[in-house]
Order: sequence, then structure tokens, then C-alpha cells
Amino acid sequence: MGTSPALASTIPSGAAPSGTDTLAINTIRTLAMDAVQQANSGHPGTPMALAPVGYTLWRDFLRFHPEQPDWPNRDRFVLSVGHASMLLYGLLHLSGVGEIDAEGERTGRPAVSLDDIKQFRQMDSRTPGHPEYRMTTGVETTTGPLGQGCANSVGMAMAACWLGDRFNGGGDTPLFDYDVYVLCGDGDMMEGISGEAASMAGHLKLANLCWLYDNNTISIEGHTELAFSENVAERFRGYGWNTLHVADANDTAAIAAALQTFKDTTDRPTLIVVDSVIGYGSPNKHNTAAAHGEPLGAEEIKLTKRAYGWPEDANFRVPDDVRDHLRDLMIARVAPDFEAWEAALAKAQEAEPEKIDELHRMRRGKMPDGWDDAVPTFDADAKGIASRDAGGKVLNAFAAKVPWLLGGAADLAPSTKTKLNFEGAGSFSAQDYAGRNVHFGIREHAMGAIANGMALCYLRPYTATFMVFSDYMKPPLRLAAIMELPVVFVFTHDSIGVGEDGPTHQPIEQLAQLRGIPGMTTLRPADANETAEAWKVALSQSDRPSSIVLSRQALPTVDRSKYAPASGLAKGAYVLADAEGGAPEVILVGTGSEVSLCLQAYEALKQDGVRARVVSMPSWELFELQDEAYRNEVLPPDQLARVAVEQAGPMGWDRYVGMKGAKLVMNSFGASAPIGKLQAKYGFTVDNLVKLAREQIALRRSE
Amino acid sequence: MGTSPALASTIPSGAAPSGTDTLAINTIRTLAMDAVQQANSGHPGTPMALAPVGYTLWRDFLRFHPEQPDWPNRDRFVLSVGHASMLLYGLLHLSGVGEIDAEGERTGRPAVSLDDIKQFRQMDSRTPGHPEYRMTTGVETTTGPLGQGCANSVGMAMAACWLGDRFNGGGDTPLFDYDVYVLCGDGDMMEGISGEAASMAGHLKLANLCWLYDNNTISIEGHTELAFSENVAERFRGYGWNTLHVADANDTAAIAAALQTFKDTTDRPTLIVVDSVIGYGSPNKHNTAAAHGEPLGAEEIKLTKRAYGWPEDANFRVPDDVRDHLRDLMIARVAPDFEAWEAALAKAQEAEPEKIDELHRMRRGKMPDGWDDAVPTFDADAKGIASRDAGGKVLNAFAAKVPWLLGGAADLAPSTKTKLNFEGAGSFSAQDYAGRNVHFGIREHAMGAIANGMALCYLRPYTATFMVFSDYMKPPLRLAAIMELPVVFVFTHDSIGVGEDGPTHQPIEQLAQLRGIPGMTTLRPADANETAEAWKVALSQSDRPSSIVLSRQALPTVDRSKYAPASGLAKGAYVLADAEGGAPEVILVGTGSEVSLCLQAYEALKQDGVRARVVSMPSWELFELQDEAYRNEVLPPDQLARVAVEQAGPMGWDRYVGMKGAKLVMNSFGASAPIGKLQAKYGFTVDNLVKLAREQIALRRSE
Repeated sequence: MGTSPALASTIPSGAAPSGTDTLAINTIRTLAMDAVQQANSGHPGTPMALAPVGYTLWRDFLRFHPEQPDWPNRDRFVLSVGHASMLLYGLLHLSGVGEIDAEGERTGRPAVSLDDIKQFRQMDSRTPGHPEYRMTTGVETTTGPLGQGCANSVGMAMAACWLGDRFNGGGDTPLFDYDVYVLCGDGDMMEGISGEAASMAGHLKLANLCWLYDNNTISIEGHTELAFSENVAERFRGYGWNTLHVADANDTAAIAAALQTFKDTTDRPTLIVVDSVIGYGSPNKHNTAAAHGEPLGAEEIKLTKRAYGWPEDANFRVPDDVRDHLRDLMIARVAPDFEAWEAALAKAQEAEPEKIDELHRMRRGKMPDGWDDAVPTFDADAKGIASRDAGGKVLNAFAAKVPWLLGGAADLAPSTKTKLNFEGAGSFSAQDYAGRNVHFGIREHAMGAIANGMALCYLRPYTATFMVFSDYMKPPLRLAAIMELPVVFVFTHDSIGVGEDGPTHQPIEQLAQLRGIPGMTTLRPADANETAEAWKVALSQSDRPSSIVLSRQALPTVDRSKYAPASGLAKGAYVLADAEGGAPEVILVGTGSEVSLCLQAYEALKQDGVRARVVSMPSWELFELQDEAYRNEVLPPDQLARVAVEQAGPMGWDRYVGMKGAKLVMNSFGASAPIGKLQAKYGFTVDNLVKLAREQIALRRSE
Repeated sequence: MGTSPALASTIPSGAAPSGTDTLAINTIRTLAMDAVQQANSGHPGTPMALAPVGYTLWRDFLRFHPEQPDWPNRDRFVLSVGHASMLLYGLLHLSGVGEIDAEGERTGRPAVSLDDIKQFRQMDSRTPGHPEYRMTTGVETTTGPLGQGCANSVGMAMAACWLGDRFNGGGDTPLFDYDVYVLCGDGDMMEGISGEAASMAGHLKLANLCWLYDNNTISIEGHTELAFSENVAERFRGYGWNTLHVADANDTAAIAAALQTFKDTTDRPTLIVVDSVIGYGSPNKHNTAAAHGEPLGAEEIKLTKRAYGWPEDANFRVPDDVRDHLRDLMIARVAPDFEAWEAALAKAQEAEPEKIDELHRMRRGKMPDGWDDAVPTFDADAKGIASRDAGGKVLNAFAAKVPWLLGGAADLAPSTKTKLNFEGAGSFSAQDYAGRNVHFGIREHAMGAIANGMALCYLRPYTATFMVFSDYMKPPLRLAAIMELPVVFVFTHDSIGVGEDGPTHQPIEQLAQLRGIPGMTTLRPADANETAEAWKVALSQSDRPSSIVLSRQALPTVDRSKYAPASGLAKGAYVLADAEGGAPEVILVGTGSEVSLCLQAYEALKQDGVRARVVSMPSWELFELQDEAYRNEVLPPDQLARVAVEQAGPMGWDRYVGMKGAKLVMNSFGASAPIGKLQAKYGFTVDNLVKLAREQIALRRSE
């Protein structure tokens, strides 16, 4: 490289190109340059490089109707290189996409107006630095953290297959057969999550999936030679993908030909490697890292505009010819498809009204009527069952009522107990896209992001792995919360209760980690009945993810005739067992497997005439949502003799037990040994808890 | 598959095999079966499958001297399939490795005795469920979380190259030319981190690296067909590896031939795909998931022993012929190499005593004399500099004094400011293994684990990326802490101060996440001088990792003539500015970029006659290490009017401000906007802080 390909090649040569197309492409480029310059921050180089690619895709291939951006069967466009957001905003602007608000209503204004582009990266604008789902119509997923968009796209493509299998009748027009297109870059290719996702996509033969890899050979530290010299196409062939090469991102005919090959490929996903020049057109910054993540500068912008044959003093210019050009072409091409689809939907509505009602519910994030009629209940049982086992039963009960609840584990279903085992819930595979058990393989990171992609396409996905491996999937947990997606993340083997597998498999800090994510509901139920309530809460939420944290070991099923009902879980914390004959002298606050320990200590204290209260606190987040009166009822401010009990790190417990409260928690990593020995070693015994409770009482009396 | 290859093939056919070899291999297998059965938990199937592979490697290739397990130039053996720990324990036992304790002293007892094997997975045994570094001599790294061992191995191989470049004289015997062998499995191959690490290893042409991939086609959910059908070898060729295939794990001649090909390959790493049968020999469980992670059962063990021609009632049996067989062969093969190395070391010691002194320091985790003489200091400056910039200067100052301090960023060095820019600190590359700037590429997860591998081989590595992407590398952060490795993890762009890049790039919960890891020292310095102190603390620690958390934006350099010196950082928290003329009425506790805000509020309150104290609290962990007297001096228990100020989530702050203290923190994700607008939106203003301080004072007075 080193020199720019001739600028003349920006004139699209395929798919009935015109001078207006060239103008449109350069409009996208110059808007990106101008917006970044005005914001004094952002990433101009990639929009400049990929404008011909994005434009060709949208103009001639993407089945996206600008007036119907919520059409369920639209092709999905994922900008995995989220930092190139101005490319997407430019395309949304030129295609005249209409805005749809959070309630699904048309606002009558454009998704991205020219004024919005002038507000690039400003507070509350529709054009944030990275594309944010729910903030801009036409943004199909929040991107920026590299690799996530790639993995989301696999979930979207899987959803298309699943939805097609469920909803397509025998007619000519399928209700679901959308394709998923991704623009990705070197960073996406280097991140491991993309490899996991690509391996899975190849395995599942997702022929509706097309990644366009922007091979610009420039990363932030310089030429990719510094760190990245693999043969990406060969790697993807190893994954089972078809791979194509376009030698010049400006060669729109070659791009169109490659996209057509994708359309014609029916047995595998497609990777199109597109060689491009970052900052294309900029005389002094093209093909350099300087074009990546900062404004080009006023002078360089002028020079670049001159190179494009653009009026060099015109900022935010959209030529008149360009204004409706892309929009008109897209509508002309896509409207017949959309109309056929609407007719097919109407026909299906008549033939199978219940099924189409289901589709409408899915789109609105609503559950089927009576979905929670069948919350399983479990009889009191001192021996009890592991909450992972209870979770499996509960999940199956709900899944039988919610046909679009599907998911699986990162190769741990026999341990996480998350397999759907009723009639008809087969394995989701290349041979059977109707299956509801997804075998994610040992790919936690992709699993999380794939689930996010499925949730973006109307499904209610769940995932499962061991709690400690939540570490491997932290980025998609966070993104589920940012996007407000109702994914259910199941984490089992939730403490030193893991036993012999030892410290690498015993979560310590992971509970606090989940609780720390804004917008995540973390639920650690105490027994089988709280587990049922936890799943109920998780599924009733339509705009936030949940983490359900379950034990490996058996937990006693609390006798609810003696203690409070498990429905208290919905309030996050509740008084499970209370002092009799007076106010409590001490409060024991536990979660999950430690609640039974608290009950044992409570009984022991009671025998000794000590008035204790046990608070089961399965969800900090839900508790914080309650009003102050309720919170003070559960944890009276005047009773500070408190002990928190949790087989996890101490982080955050001071909030509920105060600076002088006791915390029976894990202050180190665990160890490899049988569970009983571990509990003794780390003090999770009735005797120790009773001792701590008595110390608290004494401490408060001494004050 | 479906049927076991003929058992006769267990007789090694290459490398002067003998009946004793077969006995030894079957000893490893039966010990694994017996240990798992006795522990009533564990993973017998993979040791049974891979015993011939491990045995052939150790017998004929691994340059490991059983009496010199700390020989710096030993080949490294990494069991990335950590659940197959009994394979490693069996090999350590049969090779008679001698134990070395934490102080580097020989204890005179074996690393793994037969009694130790009988204590498999028991409390405080030398044979925990997964191999734990520091707990068992001969365990080169803690493994279990899949993919980590693979990525560690890349760091170990890089270290070999670097050490060789630094220490090898012109003599015949290099001081460093060790090889790194890894046993890995399907899980390792599916995890993205391994792909990242393999891509990097191929890029760096690490010819000293050999991965043996156990292709047993069985994962926990069943046949790998369920989730994994890629062509792994083709993928690795894409990464630039040589790939070989051994069709039968029992064919020791083929294994030996492949290992020899690895030895003869000098321009790239090698992947050997070894087809194996999990649970080999078990008539009813071989080639099934049932052989993976649970005891075979007493009956099946008998049947399996019978198939091996083993006395079926003999448990934990090591035949007399086997007892010293592997040990003797290894010593005979390796002792000459070791002696030549010792001679070379002695010669080098004479020729270049300073260099060899350096090597000894590296081995003992000691810094060079006077390494901290040159802590940079920064003059008071209201405008100041970003702590990432200060960090870059400080890092360079220390690196100039510590030749084995090296590292780099995940393609963000120009932003994290972590490049070593002095003479001689070039890029670490296939062309120059002496370089000290490592270009990790956009591979955060592998970066962390590679750094851990380097630290395991005497180097002092650092890594760098944006704080929010610490999420991508949580697993190796945790493992660095478990292994007590003194890696320095630099995280810049540490708050909403990131600005326009928006919520995906603005860390919120990450600080608490780092603080939650047991054994991690998290440091968030307030200005340039605290940054210098933070690096000093990080480098002075030899047995724990550190995270240094730095700002993107400029921070005023605090006037230390007016306020307390930055050396207070070493105590975790210190009184930076105190009330005058009486005890403080309110305490403002801040970290990092918010400390200056606290100082501004302090001055404003002072002007109004309010006595405030400012506590700079760069490290919770260091503060907790101080005695109670000091802690009470900084945060007097009788003064509970307190405000915590941190541009991060609230998690954990109640510990320092109490249940009624105020927290000026982030209670949601951030937004895309210029920094000033963000700070105003979220209340990080002097006015708001003053208001909160006054409210605290009023609240306490009302009590």
C-alpha cells in the first residue's frame, strides 16, 4: 500500500451506477469528516474507506424499507466496527429512515436528520459516539466493544432460522428469511469472541450470515504487521465458511458481485475480505493510524474534499441530487417485498391467528397468557435439592408455556441442568433450526453475545455456565444491560460449594461483579421455591437482563408453613423467620445456600432464648427498588446488630449490615476439598454463625 | 469412532519402547482411575486417553530434570486441560520429581508421593483438583479455566525468546532455549482466548511452542458434533502454524515422530492434532461423556484394569519395574544438558557477573539495586496532566532501570501511553526478540494470560488497555491473583472522563470488579505524583498483581507544599488536606480524578468556615493492610459525616462512609457527550459536592 488507489474508482461500476451514486458515497464520507471535526472527536477514517461498501450493500442488497424500519423480516445490518458510527448515521440519513420511538410509534421525524448529524457525540443526541440500540432507529445493536457485533449477528441469524421454521407457512412469501450483514474490522478479527462466534456459525451452516471484513491493514499502533499477520480467509475456511475477496473497497461492482455470491450460497456463512484504505482520499492521512480515531483537521479536510471534487468550504453538504436518491432506490427495490410480506402476514393471521398473535407478543416483549400459572412448587424437605436441579424443573415448566424461550449452556447442560427435556424441544442444529436446546460449545463469551442477538430478534434466550465462568462473558452481560435486553443468564456452581474442583472453579468476586452491573437483576435464590420465583421475576422483566445464581449442592427446601412464603423474593429481601416475643436482637441476612444456615442458627439462638430475625435477600437490586418503608421494615434502622452470610467476597455488604456489622463471607480464594471441609475451614457453620450473632448483640449493647 | 483401538497399540512402538513403558503408561491410567474413585470426584477419562502422549513427551522429549525442577532452562509443560490433573500428578510421581518449597529450598521429599496421590482433591494436599501453581512442584501454571494454559504458554515461549536474546553468550550452550509444550483439548480450541494466543504465536513465529490437541470428539454435552465441527488444523494453518496429525494417541511412535518434526521446525509454532479415545480401555465408558468428569465406578474400574492386563483388585499400584523407570530414563537423557548448562552459567558468571546477577534477581523476584531511586516527581500544576501521561513517564523511568520490565497494550499504546520510548526498547517481534514493546494486538484476553506466562518465566510484564476492556481479560486477572504473579495491569480511560465515546467505553462497575479480586492491588492515583507512587508500589510487590487505573483527561498536579505528600499512597489512603482549627466536620473521600474535585470543595467550604478533611484513597487494599490505629486516624470512627466521590459505581463505598454517608458516584451507565457536560449531568461539580457535604453535616447534627 502506501498510495491511494485512483480516486476515479470511487465511481461505482456495477449495479447500474451513476454519478449520483458517487456523489452519495462522497456525501457519506464528507459528513463523517465534518461531524468528527465539529465534535472534535471521533473516527473518520473507516467511514471514508467503507462508504462504497456500505452504500452498495444498502442500495442493492439490504432488504430494509426506510419507512418500515421495524419490519420483522428486514435484513439486519450490524456495524461491528461501532467506532465508524458516522457511516451508519450517514446511511440512515441518506436512506431517509423514519423514526420509531420506544413505544413503537412513528414520530414523523427522520431517524437521523442533518441536524442530528451536526449533534454528533453531543449529550442526548441521536448520534452518539458509538451506535446505541434504542437511541437511534435503525441501529440494530449497540456496538463499540470489538467482536460483540460479530457475535450478535450470529444470534440474529440463528433467530432468523428459528423464526422461519416456526412461522413460515407453505406460501410463496416466508414470514422470516432475513439475512444478516456485518461490517467488521481487524479488531473484530483479532478478538477471540469473533472466532468463537464464527466457529459456531460455520457449525450451524448459517447461510443467511455475511461478514464484510474491512482489511485496511491499519490498527491504532500502526500497520497490522505489528501484531496481525494471519491468513484470515484460511482461518474462516477452517470454520466452514465460504470466503471471498474484494481487492478494492472502491470497486462497487466487485462488492456487488461478492454480495451476490453470498446470496447464492445456501450451505454456509460468507466472509468477504475487502481490502480498503483507511482515510481514503485524505492526501496526507490515508493509510495511516492518524486517520483512525481523531479529526482530520480543517486543512486536511479541505484537501480531502478537493480530492473528492467536493466544494472544499461546504460543510455538512448533502447535494440536492443525493437527497432522496438512496431512499428512492431502496424503496423501489424493497417495497414489493414488504407488501408481499404484509399480505402473507394477513393470510397467516386468518389461517393461524394464534400463531400470529404469538408473533405480535414476541415483538412487544409480552409473554403468553397464563405463562406463569404453572410456577412449580416444592414441598418442604430437609434434604432438599440443589437449586440448579430446581432451576431445571422450573425452566422446563415455563418453557413449555413460552414457545420462544430457548437457550442452552456452554457445554455444561448436564451440570447446569438447563436442558429442555420435553417433547419437541430438540437440539438447535444445522439439521433442525426448530430445536430449542442450543449447544453453544465451550464458548461462554460468544454465548452471551449470541443470546443478546437472539433477544434483539424477538426471542427470549437463556444461557448457562458455571458461575466462575461468568468472567469469560462479562462484556455481553454488560451489553445486555446497556441494551436493556431481557436475556436470562443462568450461573450454577455458585460458591465454594463447588468443592473439589478448587479455587479456579469457585466463584468469590463474581456475585459482586454481577450486582455491580447497572440494570442487571441478580437473583440468588435460597431454595427450590425461591428458584421458581426467581425464574418468574426474570421472565416477567421485558427490559432488563437477569442473572440467576444457583447452587451445585443440595439445599434444604424451606418449610414455608413455618417460615414466610417464597413470593417474598419479588421484593428482593424479606423476613423469612422472625423473632418471637419482641423485637429481634440480631438480624441474620443471607442469600442462596447460606439462608438455610441462617435458619439453623436462628433455631439454635431461639433455643437459647435469643431473638433473631432471618432475612432472605436473593436480590439486592429488587430490594433497592422497594420504598423506604418496606426496606426499613425488613432491616429496621435501629437494629444494627447484623450478620451478613454469603459464600462470596465481602464487597458491598456494608450497605446492609453497616460498618460494624459482621460479615461471614469469603475473604480469600477457596481450596480444593470436599464441601464439608471447606465450609468448616471458612467458618460457614452454625456454631460460628451463632457466635458472630452473639458478638453483634454484645457489641451493640456495649455502645 | 465408537470402538476402542486394539489395546495392544498401547505398547509404544518407537523410541526404544519396552514392556515397562506399557506398564508405566497403564500405571498413570490406573492411578488416575483409582484417585478419582477414592476422591469420588474428578476426571479420569483424559488421563486414560493421553497417558501415552504425556509419557512419550516426558520420556523422550521434555528437557526436564527430575532433580532440578527449578532449572531455569527446563522445557515447560503446560496441562491446559487442567481437569486432567491426575495425568500430571502421575507423571510427576513416576519421574520422581523432587519437591522445592516456596523459598526455593529442596525439602527432600517427592513433589508428588503415592500418598499425595491418595490425597487427591483433599484439603491442603499437593494434588488439588486442578493443578495449582505454588502448591505442587512441577506445576508450571495454574490451569482449569479453559484456554488459559494455552495463552500462558505463548507468554512462556516469548519469554524464552527474550531471555535467550538477553542471556545467551556466544558459547555452545545457550542459557535459554527451552521449549514449551501444551496438552490441550476441545474446550481450549473452542475458547476464543486460545485463538487470540495462537494468532499471536503464529505472528511471532514461536518455533519453541508445541500444542498437542487432544481430539477426543467428546465434550460434556456429548459428541463434539453437537457444537464443534471446524477444521482445527486448517484454522491453525491460517494462524501461520505447522500442523501435524497423529491418528491414534496410543501410537507412541507416531507421537514421537510428530514431536521430532516439531523439534525440527524452526520457523513457526506446531500444532499436533492427536486423535484419542476418552476413557480409553473402559469397556463401557470409553468414548462417552460419562468418562469425562466423574469416577468410573468400582465395577467399571475392575473391567478396565482387566482390559489393561492389570490386577483388578490392586489399587494405587505402581509396579516395581515402573518405580524408577521414567525417572532414570529422563535423568540419563537430560543430565548432560543440565550439566552443560551449569558449566555455561559458571562461565558466564565469570565473563559477565552483572548480567548473571541480574538473572538471579529475576529468579528471586528481586529488583535491581537502586531501581526506585529515580521515581519521577512532578511540579504542582493547576492544569496538570492526564494520569495516563504521567504513567507513561513513570513507566519509562522505571523501565530504564529494570531491564526485564517489558510489556505493551492491546493495540492502544498511543492512547494508554505505555510505550517504552528510550533507546534500545524496540518492538518485540519475530525479527527482534530483544524488543521490550510487545504489540499484543486487539486481544485483551490473551494479553492478560500471556503476561501471566511471562511472569511465570522471570519477567516483569505489564499490559495496558482501556479500563472498560478489563472486562475482556477478567479471567487472567483472576489467575494472576490466584498464582500471586506480580503482573502490572494498566487501565486507562477510567471513567465517564472518556467523554464522547459513550457508555460502551465508560467504565462504571470495573473498579469494584478489580477491587473484588482477592489478592489484587488496585491503585487509582489522584495526580501525577500519586501515579509515580502507584508504579513504585506495583513494582515493589513480588507476589501479587496490581491494577493501575489512570485517567484519559488532564488532572491537576496537587500542590504538595500545601497539601500532604503523595507518598501517602503506599498506605492506601491518607489525609491530603485537613481541617484547621478543630476536628473536621465532614470528610470527603475521593480517588483518582475526583480527588481534585474534593480539594476544590474543601477550599470552598473553608472559605465558608466549614472544617472539612480530604482523604485521598487510591487503594482500598493497601488501606485495609494498615493497622486499626492508622485507619482510625484517617477515618475517625466518631466522624460519620462523610462523602465518597468516585466516577464509578457505588459498590463497596458504604464500608468507608457508612450506611448514611453520601456517595457521589455513578448510579447508571454514562452517555456520549463532552466531559464537562457529563460531569455536570452526573453531579460531579464543586457546588454539588459542597451541597452533599453540608447535608452530611446537618444530618449528623440532627442525630
